[in-house]
Amino acid sequence: MTSHSMEAHPSQVQLNKDGRLKHFLTTEGLSLEILTEILDTADSFIGTQNRSVKSVPLLRGKTVVNLFFENSTRTRSTFELAGKRLSADILNLDIARSATSKGETLMDTLWNLQSMYSDMFVVRHADSGAAHFIAQHVTPNVAVINAGDGRHAHPTQAMLDMLTIRREKGQFENLKVAIVGDILHSRVARSQIYALKTLGASEVRVIGPNTLLPPDIEQMGAKPYTNLQQGLKGVDVVIMLRLQKERMTNALLPSEAEFYRLYGLTTDKLKYAHPEAIVMHPGPINRGVEIESAVADGPQSVILKQVSNGIPLRMAVMAMAMSGQTQSTQNASANTAASPQEKPE
Amino acid sequence: MTSHSMEAHPSQVQLNKDGRLKHFLTTEGLSLEILTEILDTADSFIGTQNRSVKSVPLLRGKTVVNLFFENSTRTRSTFELAGKRLSADILNLDIARSATSKGETLMDTLWNLQSMYSDMFVVRHADSGAAHFIAQHVTPNVAVINAGDGRHAHPTQAMLDMLTIRREKGQFENLKVAIVGDILHSRVARSQIYALKTLGASEVRVIGPNTLLPPDIEQMGAKPYTNLQQGLKGVDVVIMLRLQKERMTNALLPSEAEFYRLYGLTTDKLKYAHPEAIVMHPGPINRGVEIESAVADGPQSVILKQVSNGIPLRMAVMAMAMSGQTQSTQNASANTAASPQEKPE
Amino acid sequence: MTSHSMEAHPSQVQLNKDGRLKHFLTTEGLSLEILTEILDTADSFIGTQNRSVKSVPLLRGKTVVNLFFENSTRTRSTFELAGKRLSADILNLDIARSATSKGETLMDTLWNLQSMYSDMFVVRHADSGAAHFIAQHVTPNVAVINAGDGRHAHPTQAMLDMLTIRREKGQFENLKVAIVGDILHSRVARSQIYALKTLGASEVRVIGPNTLLPPDIEQMGAKPYTNLQQGLKGVDVVIMLRLQKERMTNALLPSEAEFYRLYGLTTDKLKYAHPEAIVMHPGPINRGVEIESAVADGPQSVILKQVSNGIPLRMAVMAMAMSGQTQSTQNASANTAASPQEKPE
Repeated sequence: MTSHSMEAHPSQVQLNKDGRLKHFLTTEGLSLEILTEILDTADSFIGTQNRSVKSVPLLRGKTVVNLFFENSTRTRSTFELAGKRLSADILNLDIARSATSKGETLMDTLWNLQSMYSDMFVVRHADSGAAHFIAQHVTPNVAVINAGDGRHAHPTQAMLDMLTIRREKGQFENLKVAIVGDILHSRVARSQIYALKTLGASEVRVIGPNTLLPPDIEQMGAKPYTNLQQGLKGVDVVIMLRLQKERMTNALLPSEAEFYRLYGLTTDKLKYAHPEAIVMHPGPINRGVEIESAVADGPQSVILKQVSNGIPLRMAVMAMAMSGQTQSTQNASANTAASPQEKPE
Repeated sequence: MTSHSMEAHPSQVQLNKDGRLKHFLTTEGLSLEILTEILDTADSFIGTQNRSVKSVPLLRGKTVVNLFFENSTRTRSTFELAGKRLSADILNLDIARSATSKGETLMDTLWNLQSMYSDMFVVRHADSGAAHFIAQHVTPNVAVINAGDGRHAHPTQAMLDMLTIRREKGQFENLKVAIVGDILHSRVARSQIYALKTLGASEVRVIGPNTLLPPDIEQMGAKPYTNLQQGLKGVDVVIMLRLQKERMTNALLPSEAEFYRLYGLTTDKLKYAHPEAIVMHPGPINRGVEIESAVADGPQSVILKQVSNGIPLRMAVMAMAMSGQTQSTQNASANTAASPQEKPE
Repeated sequence: MTSHSMEAHPSQVQLNKDGRLKHFLTTEGLSLEILTEILDTADSFIGTQNRSVKSVPLLRGKTVVNLFFENSTRTRSTFELAGKRLSADILNLDIARSATSKGETLMDTLWNLQSMYSDMFVVRHADSGAAHFIAQHVTPNVAVINAGDGRHAHPTQAMLDMLTIRREKGQFENLKVAIVGDILHSRVARSQIYALKTLGASEVRVIGPNTLLPPDIEQMGAKPYTNLQQGLKGVDVVIMLRLQKERMTNALLPSEAEFYRLYGLTTDKLKYAHPEAIVMHPGPINRGVEIESAVADGPQSVILKQVSNGIPLRMAVMAMAMSGQTQSTQNASANTAASPQEKPE
């Protein structure tokens, strides 16, 4: 993952020549039109999920490889279900424990998978930029979906949150949204801020202790708060982040109890928000750490709706990227004969 | 798993308002009609298993989650095959090793899976009552199949045994059945006794050392024996239980050799049973511990037929529960809008 | 795996009475006609792999069990993909970690799987002869595919190499082929030599240190060389073997650096071969141990084409064995009623 391989910006890499999605790497730099198309497509899939037969044949005969360099049963399961409901063949690979252990390089592993006529890689990796790197250097015919890369981005989580907001609130104009917790280390928060700004939210606030707010947060278009009550005042949407307990040890965070006292969302503190504010959380919830059970299970919580929306949103992104990828491969092979063995120089 | 959550009896929880199966939790309390319908449905699936294309489209587009809180490759495989032959999408989750390890509660895990528009949970759990608890408190739209819960029940194993007996013997009337081994700790034995009594077996005997016979065995309708030869006299069906070697250490059991001498089924001891008696075992077999190889592989053994019958029996139960569940959900949503995110109060 | 169970030669066991493939255990003893049919069938599947819908319905409704007694994510994945593209239902079983751990014997495990109406076992085992043993003693109705057994054979790897050679060179006549590395321990090399001789290669050479050349190599029809440059002179195909680093410790091999100096394939040494020679490797590559990166990624390398050809080749073998198995089962059941529970004597 050397810097010279990052020359092209992910927002460019993920679009084909007609400006259609062919990978899904980040919400940063994507146009209002593309983000809206993702939400509209996901909306259309929600209808299929309540039908007796939930699957649609859009990816029939396609091979989706769940390429998890970092273990996450939860995220992997959502992509597995989304892929199956698109009728794709799914291959789950826990790379951390398998191929590379035989001393093969990352590139060899990827070239091999690609040579097996794979159509899509869903990539989870602990390093920021991994999905981008793979999309740019490894796959002439394969659509890459970022399922979380280091601190960088988690675009499907951010977009399922956008889908949930739009379904609850109807639109983004005039919406005030607060994101609460460890903003600094959160790939989810970064992806949400870019999406919210593009979709036209009137105000995006981030709330957390000073040590956990990124220094460039105002350039991203978000307003920082260190006081929860002040930050929540009048907001329409409260997004709680999951606290990574691992961080607790390294002095960036106060104790769990102290964090909860200052930034945990309780019924009382929620009163500072708009009375019809919705409460969101990407899960899994640490009850009594980020959020009180009464709030998580309460009438303003849409946490389980987020989970439900995650399947059609992932179906939408997978179907769109596959379509954009096929389109650009067909254009390419009109000129030169494409083959799955080709390595980009 | 507190007792207050057990108010409704499993036999009630597993039926919808029209008295059709919507979960399959236990054989206890199920009517002769329902048990017979299960066997008849399984019989009809046996025909499909010898066809060139074994799968039927009954669960096409449905999502079955194999929710194994206790590891069992063998049982999981049978449900995976049964689900695939019903054309369902299968998600295997080894919960012990994954989701809950991030500190999520059981309820949160279940609510999440349910929100992903799952249609069926196949539950294996080390705690008695787990499947019942899940069926009652977590899933308004999801059929729950008990794949073994603690010492309580293993109803699909018991019913595939009933299917095997009926196919070998034609009917249950006038049948004498002996169950041999560690009755006290066996969820299989409990489920078998309830099923045999309801289906009309004329006599159910349990045979084992005093320390391994449940005190309430006679109330369940079974006759206890501590002597194998006496217990086997004239029976038509001998069901050997698998010996849990783990129990051997805690003084409830004599040594393995001593157990085999007293309760192991040998060719000689089998002569006490009816000459056309069949020999059954749920597997995996401990050869030379519960049973002599000459008996396990001999002409009276139907052990591999039990395995074969396990697939169509599980297909039957899954198809019936899905159908009963769909029916009751449709009735419910005629009145109120159902949604997969709903939590029962 | 006692010798008395090996009475019938694998080349006989794998054919039905009409001389069609019903198992695929070894390339040894297979006729030119059968090997050519495998290559022709694989060729026809290559066309399907570039289609929008890659899957064909040849194994629809069939159950393929990936029975891996030895862990190999890579090989398992290729069979999983091949099976899915034939529309089969796939059950992955990591036997090393599961069933047998409960004390069940190998035969019991196999009888059980067979009783679940499985149609095909793809077997990987550390013991030479395991797939043959299983084909001969366990499965009257199940096709067995050898996915690598000990030092004995790896026939699908050898045949995908043959497919690659034929697609690159057009035919086998007049071809000189060199196989380089640890010949002694290589199941791949043995399978390749038999196939190359039958398909009519004019010369097969093996190159390696004396300690790693089998004593019976000349009887197999291969010419041994201990000097790489001499052995490569004028060859059309160079097949590098993967070095098993585990062997390095036991004095059969010089050090890694010494091995690379003598037998590693570099740009310079490759010049001894025919200028249009192709370079092959079964993967995963140890870069800088068996092969220089410049060669592995260079214009003469067809290593990734081998990977691509692996899927249609495995589809071909699976489809042919299933068809030959079905044929012979139908013939058998015309006389006696076949049942999946049957054990061979």
